[in-house]
Amino acid sequence: MDCIFCKIINNEVPSFKVYEDDFVLAFLDINPATMGHTLVIPKKHFENIFDIEDEYLKKIIVVAKKIAEKMKEKGFGGVNFYHASDRVAEQGVFHFHLHVIPRVEGDGIDFTKSLNSISKFNSEDFEEIRNKITLI
Amino acid sequence: MDCIFCKIINNEVPSFKVYEDDFVLAFLDINPATMGHTLVIPKKHFENIFDIEDEYLKKIIVVAKKIAEKMKEKGFGGVNFYHASDRVAEQGVFHFHLHVIPRVEGDGIDFTKSLNSISKFNSEDFEEIRNKITLI
Repeated sequence: MDCIFCKIINNEVPSFKVYEDDFVLAFLDINPATMGHTLVIPKKHFENIFDIEDEYLKKIIVVAKKIAEKMKEKGFGGVNFYHASDRVAEQGVFHFHLHVIPRVEGDGIDFTKSLNSISKFNSEDFEEIRNKITLI
Repeated sequence: MDCIFCKIINNEVPSFKVYEDDFVLAFLDINPATMGHTLVIPKKHFENIFDIEDEYLKKIIVVAKKIAEKMKEKGFGGVNFYHASDRVAEQGVFHFHLHVIPRVEGDGIDFTKSLNSISKFNSEDFEEIRNKITLI
């Protein structure tokens, strides 16, 4: 399989690793939003959130927390987690990955801007979508 | 404690709930980036990633996956997960929350722009930060 992250896992492509166990690998993003920007991935190939096994997902989020704690300990003010599943959601590499992005004051990153909706919604819209996606 | 999310958990403030169990609640973000934008939170108060218990974190990510799957099933093309810990990382409400943002073609959201670094880094920068944050 021609997957760049599988090649990183197999050491066929070099990376700056920051965590590794039997299930999870974490390494620096080579196009970082901020210096220290890390990707946490399963060592088994899953495309994205729609096919990853729960056991891998749980291990990944706990590793992401450990990395966040280390970043905080080393002087970063906070962290963001970011993940994309599917091309429509801006996924670029089709091997599941969770971004851990360390933040400092004035780093120029602005996620809030991305979260600002360009549309306005009314209470019927909320009711309609709730009925559509609810698991209750 | 004057926490808006605790009030939502206790039904003191209304919300559009999409999932609930003994540990986790999910409800529609009232300022959605896209219609269907959901927040997944622990029913116990934790401020952010730096104090949340692993057991809650694991339950939250599995619920987020279930919601993502339901969104996909209902016709959304993909999803993003987003999380902020600390004011410096643009955290607004200080009760841990994970955003699940459903995406459709042409919805106008652009996370990639937020991820584009304004700085350039060289290989010594990578080596230096790796040595700082590594857990290996």
